[in-house]
Parts: sequence; structure tokens; C-alpha cells
Amino acid sequence: MSSLRVAARLRPIASRLASKSSLRPYATSSAEQPFFTNEPSGPTVKTAIPGPESQKAIAELDKVFDTRSLNMLANYQKSFGNYIADPDGNVLLDVYAQIASIPVGYSNPALHAAAVSEQMASALINRPALGNFPSHDWASILETGILSVAPKGLNQVFTAMAGSDANETAYKAAFMYRRQHERGGADVEFSAEEISSAMNNQSPGAPQLSILSFKTAFHGRLFGSLSTTRSKPIHKLDIPAFDWPQATFPLLKYPLEEHAQENAKAEAESLADVERLITTHHLPPCAVVIEPIQSEGGDNHASPAFFQQLRALTQKHNVLLIVDEVQTGVGATGKFWAHDHWNLSTPPDMVTFSKKAQTAGYYFGNPALRPNKPYRQFNTWMGDPARAILFRAIIQEIERLDLVSNTAKVGEYLYNGIEDLAKRYPGEVQNLRGKGQGTFIAFDSPRRDEFLKKAKSVGVNIGGSGERAVRLRPMLIFQRHHADILLEALEKIIKS
Amino acid sequence: MSSLRVAARLRPIASRLASKSSLRPYATSSAEQPFFTNEPSGPTVKTAIPGPESQKAIAELDKVFDTRSLNMLANYQKSFGNYIADPDGNVLLDVYAQIASIPVGYSNPALHAAAVSEQMASALINRPALGNFPSHDWASILETGILSVAPKGLNQVFTAMAGSDANETAYKAAFMYRRQHERGGADVEFSAEEISSAMNNQSPGAPQLSILSFKTAFHGRLFGSLSTTRSKPIHKLDIPAFDWPQATFPLLKYPLEEHAQENAKAEAESLADVERLITTHHLPPCAVVIEPIQSEGGDNHASPAFFQQLRALTQKHNVLLIVDEVQTGVGATGKFWAHDHWNLSTPPDMVTFSKKAQTAGYYFGNPALRPNKPYRQFNTWMGDPARAILFRAIIQEIERLDLVSNTAKVGEYLYNGIEDLAKRYPGEVQNLRGKGQGTFIAFDSPRRDEFLKKAKSVGVNIGGSGERAVRLRPMLIFQRHHADILLEALEKIIKS
Repeated sequence: MSSLRVAARLRPIASRLASKSSLRPYATSSAEQPFFTNEPSGPTVKTAIPGPESQKAIAELDKVFDTRSLNMLANYQKSFGNYIADPDGNVLLDVYAQIASIPVGYSNPALHAAAVSEQMASALINRPALGNFPSHDWASILETGILSVAPKGLNQVFTAMAGSDANETAYKAAFMYRRQHERGGADVEFSAEEISSAMNNQSPGAPQLSILSFKTAFHGRLFGSLSTTRSKPIHKLDIPAFDWPQATFPLLKYPLEEHAQENAKAEAESLADVERLITTHHLPPCAVVIEPIQSEGGDNHASPAFFQQLRALTQKHNVLLIVDEVQTGVGATGKFWAHDHWNLSTPPDMVTFSKKAQTAGYYFGNPALRPNKPYRQFNTWMGDPARAILFRAIIQEIERLDLVSNTAKVGEYLYNGIEDLAKRYPGEVQNLRGKGQGTFIAFDSPRRDEFLKKAKSVGVNIGGSGERAVRLRPMLIFQRHHADILLEALEKIIKS
Repeated sequence: MSSLRVAARLRPIASRLASKSSLRPYATSSAEQPFFTNEPSGPTVKTAIPGPESQKAIAELDKVFDTRSLNMLANYQKSFGNYIADPDGNVLLDVYAQIASIPVGYSNPALHAAAVSEQMASALINRPALGNFPSHDWASILETGILSVAPKGLNQVFTAMAGSDANETAYKAAFMYRRQHERGGADVEFSAEEISSAMNNQSPGAPQLSILSFKTAFHGRLFGSLSTTRSKPIHKLDIPAFDWPQATFPLLKYPLEEHAQENAKAEAESLADVERLITTHHLPPCAVVIEPIQSEGGDNHASPAFFQQLRALTQKHNVLLIVDEVQTGVGATGKFWAHDHWNLSTPPDMVTFSKKAQTAGYYFGNPALRPNKPYRQFNTWMGDPARAILFRAIIQEIERLDLVSNTAKVGEYLYNGIEDLAKRYPGEVQNLRGKGQGTFIAFDSPRRDEFLKKAKSVGVNIGGSGERAVRLRPMLIFQRHHADILLEALEKIIKS
């Protein structure tokens, strides 16, 4: 079945690859059932990309919309499953997936059914101010959707719009929590000095506190979240920032097994830096925010032991731990939440989400993280019920197709295939990472930007991260036959 | 026709009111065509609010969602036009409209058609990373929607998710613009010092610049926008803020004609304060942000002359003017944009929008406000095409029903009716404001919170703003027969 779904022109080489390598445990099975029958059997590349139709449309769009970051113009009505189409009839296997934010495939039939439902129509056209006028079915939408996948130990949610405000509202909760503690509890009223100084943007009302983040981290682009983002200068230049601290991140060396001692040292140094900053920074951190895998910053991983010790450190110093799962959350790492890999003895204080959830917000468990008064954590929309209904349909689709198991299995298959490529082309595929992390796989390329550009010509849409990483972010419906096509394409790029 | 649509039990007093006052130019006409035939003929109050069904549902919701700011649980599937329904069968005339964010009525049939269209379904389930992979029809969606109502002189748009990030991205554009100017132009590269200091959240890369806002302003609740918000301490307490300046806002006295001299003086003092802060604040402002009518802060108005002089001041000092139309935009003031009332000789540099647009972002005209490089103003989603498609349907509905003219006319009728109430109950209706501003009307009440609570019992949902204001924010489809019901209800509340 699998081989039938690989484009005919790609099959011979793909089969050769599969037969050559003993590292592909699933390659011998041809019984894989495709999840969707309306998906193309493989990529189609008809023109250079952008082709003539796309170029015309891009010129039109550029008159009113900044197109300098445009990667590819898409026709989503013609995009199905793992394949993205463009106006020139090109159809690419998409392992970038809207910067890791398409969970269950383009034009997914189950999502389509949710999209045209009466509940969705009402949510779209009667958008409530959720904090003031929630709908009678909002509790049910939360419980059967967003909250049904809440990380262990976290049973509350604050809904938001996108990753940046998910993080910023979590930061606000952390500041309010810290000040409430310093003030002596939820029942202690604000002082007159706090009230008047807050209105003047001065302490103590606007406190001299901070959020601690890590070098090469990415947490968003609004003013608070950007102050914790340390990925690239282009994200930060010319924008005022809070003088918040950044700890060293343990940039591991690969292969891990050959650098165990150095890597353990790097992690220990990072943790020491965290403790130093918590105890000495002139704006005391009230929370540490961290991504399970630094994504925009270059796919930087750390060990479960590192995260366990980080959790212990935050508890020792009564600082909150915010896990930013905006990019890692919702199944791609082979667990629903990437921090499930850590086996923490106590859950993080807050976990933020967005992207594949198609909505955003943060989970928390401690009731004291609900501010002591209403309207402290509030805005008009507080998320979007239409998007929450869609997330519920996504969760149901993930369960129906057992997609978290799928990413674990296919991820292993894909990782092994790339490992094989790395052995055969060691100069071209470096620092392969993401073993055991589902399809959340990356490697460094000495000519990364050229690599990504070339990928389109062989039928694959791939993204990058950091300065040198080729970042794979397939959807959760990425299967072995897609992996075969991808591996084939990677080798073509390398060889060319 | 109008009288048929007023609830029978309310009609006698409404007619009496209408006939008593010569200030209601439209009261004698009974030929008004209702916009929608499926709208209730008047409010229905069956239980105390919240009733037993609502109370049960609120208790359930509270387990997972903070309900302390809950005003009323709604059943939107049963809400039509100007009327909001609850699970107990209560149906209220809604002149709060989800904090001024429902434009053309609940369950609007034209919006429903857009919501269940295939274009909408695709936009919902295939959400793009707009900056990288816009759809082939994105230019058309922008041109036939958002951009078709762009303020005069502004032909570019940056789309966002909600009011806070609309303002923050506009602020970011202002900072980049200023620094580009200081640097010597778009072609001058960042210095090594700028690049390294930006990564450390230090100047010059993270510049010591500011956004100037006004006392009692509201511009959002994320870290940058909250630094410009000065409405209430509860919005700001415990949240770190930038040390940005606030200018005095000219809090006018009413009736305007009796306080012309004082008010002119207050406006002159405010402008002097703006100039002082622009020229002396230790973090130089690169932009001034202002609401045409301060909404959350208590419905505070200023004259067109004030805004004209503010525009001149910003130009004199090469500082940008950002007009925050998040609450005032999209028709309710009797103009599509509230700043259309000012007759500026040059347009504002940026105009932000959200709420009734059901999407968000900012307009601008100057190409230099596009940053000099890609990825400087960027995020994964950059708005939501589904919401942009909905805004297009809203614009079409506004045009079809000529709703901006409607708010101008009905607003005048409503204003005159409240003015009559103010004359008869001067202690209860104070500082009436919003004359000539469509339905964007407010007055102060000595017992405001009680007033708002009582409103529900007489069939009307009304909101407040600031400390004392009763804030009227009817939808654009609010007609004279609704105004009659509202005036009747206001008098009932006052008398009780």
C-alpha cells in the first residue's frame, strides 16, 4: 500500500534507499494504511517556484501587504493532507506545515465538518467577550476540548489568541502571584502607594521584577514576550525591552553519546547560571520560561535530567516554571506535550500553547495563580470560541487516528533514515537531533538556505531555524510513505 | 411599523415620552423599516438574572474558568439582532454588544452565509502563516474587505489578532521608523553594537525611546500596550511597565456650551503637556497614541480643534500620531472612523482597529513605515483570514443597510431623548456626552453600578466605563424603535 502512494517517478530510488538500510525498521512493511484517500500520491513540480501565476499574484499582493518574507503563495482549497498546492499547479510535500501549526492535514474532512457546523457558525458570527458574556456551552467546549488534553496536574486554562499573548498573560499571572506572596496573601489589599505608582508605571505598583529566559530562546514578539526572546537580532532590533536576565542554554554536541561528559558539564553550567541570576539579578525573576526544545533558535535540546534539575531549582527559590509549548505541544514529539518526556515529580506551574492547537492560552493548576480579584487578567475577547471548537475537532482527530503514537513511530523511522544519510554524507548532514522526539527532528546544513530553496524543486517544502538548522515539522498525519518521499528528496538535495 | 415592534407592555410609556418631547425629530414617523424580521419585538425578562439555569451553568464553568468578571451567561444561538438571550429564557436589548464589538447584530443572516461558505471553511481549517504562505486570494480578501474601508491616506495594512497586539505592532513600527531615521535611512546597516546590545535588551539596540499616551487612556493589556494604558489601577497593578510618559487629557465639562472657555483652556494645557513631554521626557517619545474618544477610561471626548492641534504638534516634532480606533472604529460614531470627524489636513500616521472589525491590525500609508528588512514585523499567524473574511461580510452588510448613516440619525434621536431625561432628572443623568457622535453616547450616574445592575431587570444590557459613566454602545443596527425601548428603560431605572 505504501509504495502505491509514492509518486511513480520517485519510487525506484526510494525503494533502493529502503532496501539498502537496516536502520529502517518499518521499511519492509508495505501494509501501511494511508489516513486520507484524497491526498496526492506524491509531489508534483510543474514550474520553478514561484511560477508565473504566483509571481503575478505576489506582485498584486505586494501593493498592500509586505511580501518580503513570503516563502510560497498557496492555494489551500487545492491543498490536501500533507501536500500544499500553489497557483501554478505545483504540489509539495509540506514538512514545514505553516511553521509547525497545521496538525491534522490540509482540508481535513473532520475539521471541515466542524467548520461548517451550526455551533461554529454561531461562534464565528456571535463572538463573545468571554470574560463577561461566555456562552452557555463554553464550559462544555473547554471540558471536551482544550481541557481534555490539559497537562497532568494543570486543570485550569486561560484562553488567548496566539503564542505571544499566551506567554504574556502567563507572565502577568506570575508577576501577580509573586507580588501577592510578597504582600502577604490574597486578602491583603493594595496599598495607596502601589495604586498611585502603578498608574505612573513606577514601582512598587509596577514592580521591579523580571522573567528569566534562556539564550537562543523564542517566546514571541510583543514587548514582554520579546524581552524574553533571544533568538535573532532581527527580531529585537530597535524595540525597547525590559532589562530581564538571560541564562546560558546548554548547547549540546552531537552525537550525544560521544559528548556525554561535555554535555553534562554544559547543562550543569547552565543550571548554575540560572541559580546565579535568580539570586543576584537586579530585577528578581519571578518565573523561568523555557521551551522543551528551542525551536526558532535552532532546535536546541536538553536532557530530561536538565529539566528535572531546573524544576528543582525553581522550587528551591520559589520561582515559577513556565513551559512554553507553543511549538512543541500537541503531539509532534511523540508525546502530546513535549514536557511529558521529562517525568517531572511535580508539574510545571504553567504551560503555554498555540500553533497546532489553532487557538492559544496557558494551563495552570494552582488556584493561587488565579489573580485575587476579577479584571486583573482580562481582555475583551480572551481567545476565540470558534478556534476552541476547532481545537476540539483536532483533538478528536488525533485520538481517532492515534496520531501521537504515529509521530513516535514515524519519527523513529524518519530519524533512522536521516541518520543513514548523515553517515553517508557527513559533511552535509550535521548534528542530527531529535532522537526519540517523534518527528521533531533537525540537522545542520553547511549551506542551509540553499538547501531549503532547492527542496522546493524536488517537491518538498522545508523550513529552517536558527542560523544553520534544517527543521523538520511534519504534520501529525505524516506517515512512512511520506517519510520515504522526504528521505528521497533530502538525498537528491544533498547530491545536487 | 416601529410601534408594532416595541413590546406591547412598553409601548404606552414610550409613546408618551415620544409625544412629550419636541427634541425627537423622528418620533412622529412610524414608518421605520426594521432591518431584521427575526428579531424579538422587545425584551423578555422571566427570571432574576442570573436565573436558575444560568446559575447552574456558571457554577459548572467556574470549576475551569474564572467567572468573577462574568456579567451574564448567554445563549447566542437564541440571540438575534439587538437582543441577547440567556439560558433562562431572558432576552435583553443589548446596548453593550460584547464591549462594543458586535457590529451588525447577533445571528446576522448575511454573516451566517459567510460563515458557512467554503472559503470560510478553508480559511478556518487551513490557517496559514500569512507572512510566509499567504493564500492566492489573500490580496483579494484584503482589497475587497479590510482595505476597502481604509482611512483616507492609508493604503497599507498589517493584520493582527486583537486590539492589544494591533497597538503593539503599531508601536513597533513607530520605534523602527524612528531609529531608521536616526540611523540615516533604510539603507544604513545596523551597527555591531546595536546588534549585540539588542540581544542583551540594552540600548542602543533596544533603544531608550517611548510612546506617549494620555491619562485615563486605554490601549490594551499586554506589556507594551499596558504601559500606555492609564485607565484603572486594577489593569496595571503588579505588572512591570516601561517608564513611558503620560500627558494630561482635557477632561471636558458639560454641557460644552456652558464651559467653552474652561474647556478650551483644558485642551490648551493638555497640548502644552504633550509638547513638554515630547521635548523633555528622558525616554523621547517616537509616537503619540490617542483614542478619538477615551472609552474604557470613561467616555472622555475632546474637540476636533484639539486633535488638529495635536496633529500639528506631532508633525512639528517629527513624532508619529497613532489613532487607536479599536473601540471607536467601524461606524458607531456616525462616521466609519471616528477621526473622520476631525477634518485633519494630513492623515494620522497609523490607525489601529479591532472589536467591530472582528479582526485587528493597523493601517498606515507611508511606505517608510514598512520596516527596511523582512521579518522585523512578523509572527506566525499575523491575523486570521477567517476573521478577515467575516469583516468583509460585515462591511458589505454596513453598506447594504447604510448603517453609518443609521448610527448618525439614530444617535441624534437617542441623544435628544437622553438630553430630555437629563433635564427632567438632572441629579441622575449628568455630563451627557457624545452629541453628533452617532450612538457613542455616555452620561454619568451617581449610582452607576446599581444603575447597570437594575437595567437587566427592565430588559436592557448596558455597560459602564471609567468610575461613573453609563456607556451606550449599541450595534450599528440599532434603530429608533430600539431607542424608544432604551429610553423607556432608562427612565424606569432612574425612577426606581
